[in-house]
Amino acid sequence: MRHILIIGAGKSTSYLIDYLIEQSTSQDLHITIGDLQPNKLQHYSKFRCITIIELDIHQKEARQQAIQQADIVISMLPAFLHGNVAKDCLQYKKHLVTASYISQEMKNLDKAVKKAGLVFMNEIGLDPGIDHMSAMQVIDRIRDKGGKMLLFESFTGGLVAPESDNNLWNYKFTWNPRNVVLAGQGGASKFIQEGKYKYIPYHRLFRRTEFLTIDGYGKFEIYPNRDSLNYREAYGLQNVLTLYRGTMRRVGFSRAWNMFVTLGMTDDSYVMENSESLSYRDFTNSFLPYSLTDSVELKLRHYLHIEQDDIMWEKLLELDLFNPDKIVGIKNASPAQILQKILEDSWTLDSSDKDMIVMYHKFGYELDGKKQQIDSHMVVTGKDQTYTAMSKTVGLPVAIACMQILNGKIATPGVHLPIHKEVYQSILEELESYGIRFKEKKVPYMGYNNGNAISN
Amino acid sequence: MRHILIIGAGKSTSYLIDYLIEQSTSQDLHITIGDLQPNKLQHYSKFRCITIIELDIHQKEARQQAIQQADIVISMLPAFLHGNVAKDCLQYKKHLVTASYISQEMKNLDKAVKKAGLVFMNEIGLDPGIDHMSAMQVIDRIRDKGGKMLLFESFTGGLVAPESDNNLWNYKFTWNPRNVVLAGQGGASKFIQEGKYKYIPYHRLFRRTEFLTIDGYGKFEIYPNRDSLNYREAYGLQNVLTLYRGTMRRVGFSRAWNMFVTLGMTDDSYVMENSESLSYRDFTNSFLPYSLTDSVELKLRHYLHIEQDDIMWEKLLELDLFNPDKIVGIKNASPAQILQKILEDSWTLDSSDKDMIVMYHKFGYELDGKKQQIDSHMVVTGKDQTYTAMSKTVGLPVAIACMQILNGKIATPGVHLPIHKEVYQSILEELESYGIRFKEKKVPYMGYNNGNAISN
Repeated sequence: MRHILIIGAGKSTSYLIDYLIEQSTSQDLHITIGDLQPNKLQHYSKFRCITIIELDIHQKEARQQAIQQADIVISMLPAFLHGNVAKDCLQYKKHLVTASYISQEMKNLDKAVKKAGLVFMNEIGLDPGIDHMSAMQVIDRIRDKGGKMLLFESFTGGLVAPESDNNLWNYKFTWNPRNVVLAGQGGASKFIQEGKYKYIPYHRLFRRTEFLTIDGYGKFEIYPNRDSLNYREAYGLQNVLTLYRGTMRRVGFSRAWNMFVTLGMTDDSYVMENSESLSYRDFTNSFLPYSLTDSVELKLRHYLHIEQDDIMWEKLLELDLFNPDKIVGIKNASPAQILQKILEDSWTLDSSDKDMIVMYHKFGYELDGKKQQIDSHMVVTGKDQTYTAMSKTVGLPVAIACMQILNGKIATPGVHLPIHKEVYQSILEELESYGIRFKEKKVPYMGYNNGNAISN
Repeated sequence: MRHILIIGAGKSTSYLIDYLIEQSTSQDLHITIGDLQPNKLQHYSKFRCITIIELDIHQKEARQQAIQQADIVISMLPAFLHGNVAKDCLQYKKHLVTASYISQEMKNLDKAVKKAGLVFMNEIGLDPGIDHMSAMQVIDRIRDKGGKMLLFESFTGGLVAPESDNNLWNYKFTWNPRNVVLAGQGGASKFIQEGKYKYIPYHRLFRRTEFLTIDGYGKFEIYPNRDSLNYREAYGLQNVLTLYRGTMRRVGFSRAWNMFVTLGMTDDSYVMENSESLSYRDFTNSFLPYSLTDSVELKLRHYLHIEQDDIMWEKLLELDLFNPDKIVGIKNASPAQILQKILEDSWTLDSSDKDMIVMYHKFGYELDGKKQQIDSHMVVTGKDQTYTAMSKTVGLPVAIACMQILNGKIATPGVHLPIHKEVYQSILEELESYGIRFKEKKVPYMGYNNGNAISN
C-alpha cells in the first residue's frame, strides 16, 4: 500500500482526487486528504481508499505526523504556505508535488533534496505547468531536427465558456478574484520583441494589448504577464529575438479594466477612510475631483474621456458603480478590496456556468535556412462548478506527476519544474486521453509584426 | 564660549554659516564644521570663529568626539543619516537642530530627550519649516479671535527665477534632481475637499493639477503632495472641510512631466538591460511598442496623443530624447536614473542662474457667523548659485532656531517641530529682516470650488 497525502482540498482538487481514487485499486493507493474544513469533503468518505483528516498546517505536530505517514505529499496550499511542508518532506524523506511557482525558499532546498534522493516537482499545474510542458515539447522537437529558435510567445487565459458568457465584460471570476484584481501589479512588465527589450509600467499594461483569433473560438486580446524573461534560461532561449508571455481576455476587457487602473481602484497599498460606510457611489467619487456642481457620472465621463455612446459606460453601469445605496461594508479596506467586492456582485459564476481555459503558443524558428512557425493551442471547457476546466488542467498534471514519481518513472532527484522530456512526454500523452490536447498548425513566420504592417 | 557643531556642509548651508559667523563675536560662538570634503570649505578658514574638520559620520569615535565638544549640534545630513547623531546628542546631552521630517526613529527618542532636558528641533527649514511656522501663525491668530478653521491649503515650489527661466519646461534643478524625478511616488496622494476624501494614484498625479495666480509673478500650477492629512492633528485641523498640500510648478510642467510618468521613465524599481550602452533614442523606444515600419517619433506621438503642433513635442525635442548618438553610460541603471541624467543635460543651472522659492497658503474660516479667507504668500529669489533662495530659506530658520535654543529662548524639552508660538513667533520676525516675509490679503471665502463653477 502506498500512501499519498493531499494538503489543502480547495477548488482545483476535484479531478486530482478522482484520478487517484480511480487508480487506487490497481495501484494500491491510500489517499489522506488534510484540510481545515473536513466537513466539506464528506462525499469522499464513501471511498475505502480515502481518509479525511482535519489539518491546520500551522500545527507543527499534526502536520509532521501526517507527512510522516505518507510516501508522497501533494501540497495544494497557496504558494507562500509550502515552506514548512517542504522542510518536513525533506526531514522525513517524502517526495513533494506542488502546482506553484518555485519560491526562493523552495529553490534553496535543492541541494538537500538531491542529497536525500527526493523529487520535489513544482509548477506542474496549468500555468505554470501545462504551459512549460507543451512549450518544451515543441521546442525540443524543433531543436532535435536542428532548428534554431527565433521567437516564442505564450498566452493563457482562465475565462468563462461561450455558453455562460452573458455579461458586458465577457468575464467572470473562475479563479481567485483577489489575484484578478491585483493582476499585473508589482513592477513593470518586461519582454523582447525582435531583439528590443520592452518595458510597460502597470498603469499602461491594459492599453498595450495584442490580438489573436483562435479558429472556432473567435478573437482574444493579450496583455503581457510580468517578466517574460524569467524562463529564458530554463527554456534555453537566450538567443531568441522575441520572447513574450501574456494573459488572454476577450476583446474589450482590458480597455474597460484600464478604467479601474486609471482611477486608482486596483491599489492595494493603503486603506480608505471610513471604508465600511462608503456607498459604491462614494467609492467611485473618491477618485474623482471634487465639484460643487457636477455629478459623479459626468466627472467620470470627463476624466476618462468616455463618449456618450461608448460601451465602456455600459460596462460601468452593469457593475452598479454609481449606486448610492449599496454599501461597501468592509472595515479598513483598500481600494482593491472594495473593487473586488463590487465585482463579485456581478462576476460570480452562476451554478450552471462553465469556465474555459485557453492556451496559445507561437514558436518561430529557422530550419534548413528557412524561417518557419508553428502555432499550437489548447481549449478546455468545464463541466460544471465542481468539474471546472481550471480544476481539470491544474489537478490532472499534479495527479499524473504524483503517480509517476511514486512509480519511479520521474526519478531525477532535486527541486524541479517540468521542462525535461523525461517528465513532460508521458504526462502530456496521458493528458490527451483526458481531452487536454494541443492543436498545431504551421503558419508563415512573420517575426513579431503586430498588424502585419507595411511601410509607405 | 559656546560651541556649535554643523555636520554636513552641503548646498543649503551658505546662509546658515554666514549667519552664525556674523553673530560669533557678539554671541561668543565657535563653529565647527564637520564634512566629508573639508577642502571645499577652505574659504571659511579665514574666520577665527570657524574650525573645519574632516568628519565621516559612519566613524563612531570621531563623530562622538566632535559631538562631545559641542553645546549644540546642527545636522544638515540627509534625513536617514540623523539617527546616530541624535543618539549621540542624547548620550552627551547636546541640543540638536535638523531641517528634516521627524522619522519614527527620531520620534521614539522623545521621552528620553524630555527627561534629559534637551531640545531636538526638527522640520525647521523651508518645507518642512517655514510652511509650518507661517501657517500656524495665521491659524493661531484666527483661533485667538474665536474663528473656526474651515479650509487650509498650502503650496510650495522650488523654481527657477523669472530672469533665468529660459527653457520650454520653465524648470531647472534647484534642488536634489533625484527627488524631483521620484516626486509623488510611494503611494496614492490623499487630501480632503469640502469634507470628501480624495485619492489620486501616482500615474494620475500630474493630470490633477490646480491653478493659482500670484500678483507680480503670474500663474502657477499645483499637484498634491503625498498625504495632506499628515499634519491634521499637529495643526489642530481635525474638523476642517478642506485640507490640501501641494507642490508648485509653472503652468504646463505637469502635463509635460506626465509624459515621462505615462511612458514609465520615472520608475526606479528595476534595472534596464544593457543600460550603459543605450542611446537616448533606445531608452525612449524601450517604452514604446515594437514596430517594423514606424519611427520612434511617430510611435511616441501616437502613444501619447501628441498633435503635430502641440508644445509638448517641442519640450521632448529640447531634451534630445530621440538622439541616437548620446549614450546613457550608466551601468545597471533604473529608468529614473537614466531620465535624471537626460534631464541634467538640460536643466542644470548656469553659473549666472538664480532660483526662486514660492510659498502660498489659503486659510478659510468662520468668524462672527461670517465665512472669510486669508491668502498669504512668500516669494524669495536667489542671488547666485551659492546664495540661493533655497539655501536662504532652509538655512536661516535653522540658524535662528539654533541661537534661540542656545540662548534658552526655545526651552521646552522634547523632539519638536516648530508649530508653537514660543518657537515660530520670533523666528518669523527675524526672517522678515532678511526679506523672508509673507504678504497677506483678505479674499472672499469660496470653499474649495475649482474654477468657481456655477451649475446650469
